Amino acid sequence: MMESIKVIIAGPRGRMGKEAVYMVEKAENLQLTAVLDRKYNRQSLSDLEGFAGIDAPVFTDIHECFSEVEADVLIDLTTPETGYIHTKTALEHNIRPVVGTTGLTEEQLTELKKLSEEKGLGCIIAPNFAIGAVLMMKFSQMAAKYFQNVEIIELHHDRKLDAPSGTAIKTAQMIAAVREKKQQGHPEEKETMTGARGADMEGMHLHSVRLPGLVAHQQVLFGADGETLTIRHDSYNRASFMSGVKMCVETVMKVETLIYGMENILD
Amino acid sequence: MMESIKVIIAGPRGRMGKEAVYMVEKAENLQLTAVLDRKYNRQSLSDLEGFAGIDAPVFTDIHECFSEVEADVLIDLTTPETGYIHTKTALEHNIRPVVGTTGLTEEQLTELKKLSEEKGLGCIIAPNFAIGAVLMMKFSQMAAKYFQNVEIIELHHDRKLDAPSGTAIKTAQMIAAVREKKQQGHPEEKETMTGARGADMEGMHLHSVRLPGLVAHQQVLFGADGETLTIRHDSYNRASFMSGVKMCVETVMKVETLIYGMENILD
Amino acid sequence: MMESIKVIIAGPRGRMGKEAVYMVEKAENLQLTAVLDRKYNRQSLSDLEGFAGIDAPVFTDIHECFSEVEADVLIDLTTPETGYIHTKTALEHNIRPVVGTTGLTEEQLTELKKLSEEKGLGCIIAPNFAIGAVLMMKFSQMAAKYFQNVEIIELHHDRKLDAPSGTAIKTAQMIAAVREKKQQGHPEEKETMTGARGADMEGMHLHSVRLPGLVAHQQVLFGADGETLTIRHDSYNRASFMSGVKMCVETVMKVETLIYGMENILD
Amino acid sequence: MMESIKVIIAGPRGRMGKEAVYMVEKAENLQLTAVLDRKYNRQSLSDLEGFAGIDAPVFTDIHECFSEVEADVLIDLTTPETGYIHTKTALEHNIRPVVGTTGLTEEQLTELKKLSEEKGLGCIIAPNFAIGAVLMMKFSQMAAKYFQNVEIIELHHDRKLDAPSGTAIKTAQMIAAVREKKQQGHPEEKETMTGARGADMEGMHLHSVRLPGLVAHQQVLFGADGETLTIRHDSYNRASFMSGVKMCVETVMKVETLIYGMENILD
Repeated sequence: MMESIKVIIAGPRGRMGKEAVYMVEKAENLQLTAVLDRKYNRQSLSDLEGFAGIDAPVFTDIHECFSEVEADVLIDLTTPETGYIHTKTALEHNIRPVVGTTGLTEEQLTELKKLSEEKGLGCIIAPNFAIGAVLMMKFSQMAAKYFQNVEIIELHHDRKLDAPSGTAIKTAQMIAAVREKKQQGHPEEKETMTGARGADMEGMHLHSVRLPGLVAHQQVLFGADGETLTIRHDSYNRASFMSGVKMCVETVMKVETLIYGMENILD
Repeated sequence: MMESIKVIIAGPRGRMGKEAVYMVEKAENLQLTAVLDRKYNRQSLSDLEGFAGIDAPVFTDIHECFSEVEADVLIDLTTPETGYIHTKTALEHNIRPVVGTTGLTEEQLTELKKLSEEKGLGCIIAPNFAIGAVLMMKFSQMAAKYFQNVEIIELHHDRKLDAPSGTAIKTAQMIAAVREKKQQGHPEEKETMTGARGADMEGMHLHSVRLPGLVAHQQVLFGADGETLTIRHDSYNRASFMSGVKMCVETVMKVETLIYGMENILD
Repeated sequence: MMESIKVIIAGPRGRMGKEAVYMVEKAENLQLTAVLDRKYNRQSLSDLEGFAGIDAPVFTDIHECFSEVEADVLIDLTTPETGYIHTKTALEHNIRPVVGTTGLTEEQLTELKKLSEEKGLGCIIAPNFAIGAVLMMKFSQMAAKYFQNVEIIELHHDRKLDAPSGTAIKTAQMIAAVREKKQQGHPEEKETMTGARGADMEGMHLHSVRLPGLVAHQQVLFGADGETLTIRHDSYNRASFMSGVKMCVETVMKVETLIYGMENILD
Repeated sequence: MMESIKVIIAGPRGRMGKEAVYMVEKAENLQLTAVLDRKYNRQSLSDLEGFAGIDAPVFTDIHECFSEVEADVLIDLTTPETGYIHTKTALEHNIRPVVGTTGLTEEQLTELKKLSEEKGLGCIIAPNFAIGAVLMMKFSQMAAKYFQNVEIIELHHDRKLDAPSGTAIKTAQMIAAVREKKQQGHPEEKETMTGARGADMEGMHLHSVRLPGLVAHQQVLFGADGETLTIRHDSYNRASFMSGVKMCVETVMKVETLIYGMENILD
């Protein structure tokens, strides 16, 4: 019988962290051995709201936590600042980090990669854990080699402040990286109402829809003579991130370097 | 047994006119008795390219045509200028017009309506004969009474010059006519790339996608707490207009006034 | 200033009832005056889990409740049996019922309608409160007059046991009621794999998709020469029912008879 | 300056062949040097209906054609029987075949592969030239590694006789090849109307929609906790096959073996 992977979760009371706790609890091959929090030192997680029956010690000090508790992997779903320190400390304690952070600097990433390889320990840092979203971006990049024309429509709830979404921009960047720049649409096309043709990014057009009821959706449309190809991702809730976190926990045990972005662990 | 409706078609060699000829030929309750063209006077339609086997006399003079040939309905698919004269002349000859023209002035419409009612003859003038498109607009207007939030995405081939499309603008106008103006999206939303949120029309957002491969498509998305309602029309080719033309021919026989817009004959 | 509509909710701890409590709390023109429950007599709703800060007396006896508390409307989201008794009792106490029940018999409905009209009090009974779903069905019925060919695809989470869904069947029934029966598809079409063409209902084809991640979705596709018309409803969570409940509460104040089905209060 | 690739087309008057002629004419890097037909020996293609202005000699005898005309590539869009002979003969004359045939036997493929490698000449045989359709299948196979649950909906015009479509079956086979068999849907799910859940293929469900107006469409839906991923291909007309044919013509010049299936030349 295979042994469970022992997991510590940092940030268990955050929205993502809470889902991660539930995911680890449910997974047969994972075992929650402790959580890192800013409060509730030395209490049991099961005493905190929303975690009834989930028994694991809470630590506020990372060094104490790593010294007293056995663990293979740290899942960190905190902030960029805290995440950086946690990642570094985990590697120093021979614990493999899985980190959901976007804000690390190039210097920090280089330093962590070096440390990871010196230690021979896997470390995965991913801005987006939704496997479906990552596949959408990856497939879009692949399709862009064969379809010169593409438009991106992203649709979100109307409480979202920024447009276009980060995922739409990332998708466009990944496409731009593999295609010759092309100004799409008819060369003489004309907006009779400003903004109708959306935002222009390297000749691609991005459209942002905002409506109550929507959650987080994106479709990438490719067109060519007589055909269109559409790749669409619908995210209905945060549970969608958890299969990605789980895959990263399993993968981080098998690699010996730092990997940035889930697209690099999907084949 | 019901008698066939006798039909004259003006503009048989145009793209729409040709489809109308085929439609009338195929319809069991319609009979093509003549066509009006700028050329080929007194020849048979069957001698012209694309009409093999379809026998009907060609006239270049509308008065000769209406005097010599028996007809109940004139289908006019020409230009606004010609269409106006044809419509008037048809009514004077007791023939009921079905006209696919957008460019008539208010004065012309008023005059034709008066003439139509004096004669007690139906007359239908429709900017769009695609039943599906007309239903999409009608349903959108109905839904707007219950959903305050709506965005319109129209998608066309990339040879189209103007954005947004006429149908999108017409749809937005029909919606605006029944709802209180509402500025949609988050009050503090921010475009990090200009145009991302599309064109703004009375607080609604319109998005125009242009890709090779596409034909003519539109979707109207309504959103409210926890749900969305989408009404979508896909037009793949001009044949889609012909069931509308046929319905207008059948309807024009039963009414005694001028009707503008197919939405007013659908219930 | 308009006065608030005073509301009592029966079944506040059920999944739908809880949403109704939140909805009434949020609505400026509604005021929660009491709740009916099987337990917690004479306690305050604010003491029950999930209702912190929402102050309203709990009653287990409907007669006491209606005698002691002032109310215009009863929202009943319980079972068919309880719902029937509550509806009748409410009318007798001059309170207008809004009931989310499917299981009433024809006799019960006839009796309640008679009582409602004797009292001159509105009473609305609706199997489905999602305005979007009701509009989808209504529009589908309207479109069926012009499109002879239609297929229904409903998509739900994979915990759903029955296929097709009740909404799909209801939609097909509403369409069947207005069209001549038509056996769709090619007369010689052949399933090389059993079930490929879905379920057949009056010549229409119904398809049921079941996948984790999905919530409750349906699209109705109409096809004709060169065009398709699609009406789609996506329900993401139970909040979607609440705008319908609110509309019923507002409408029930203005009518003096029993109305069955929300499609009959939408125009 | 790069020299043009010289092309012979077999079957120029077929529906696909005609599109191929137009495509080669339009492509700057391709040059049509002859066509193979069953009729019209030694006439010019420009004299045949639909080819006005496209000058190329017509041959009925393949040996005469290959002896008298210079060519790099044969595009064969005929039948399996003729296609096999053409392919073999072309290789013997040092001409690289691009063949749109599905019906070759394993023996024939093995023989042609051997001949192709002996000669050191590329040979591409593809059942489907639509790049978008091939990518849809390829991406579906890739996604199936991460999503255990998938359903396939294919939608075609109602003149189609067989259901499900060949592409749907091929897609399901490609998915089945990479995943553990899984019986999808709830273990206790129940069809209250036979066929509602579609056809079952290795535990996957396939649904076939048939409506007038539709052309050829397929969507592959993957579901997991909280998210869905959809890959959709829409084919509007035969032009969609031609970018694939062109890519094959360009690729066949660079390889020295037989390749079966366009998915093997896309990366």
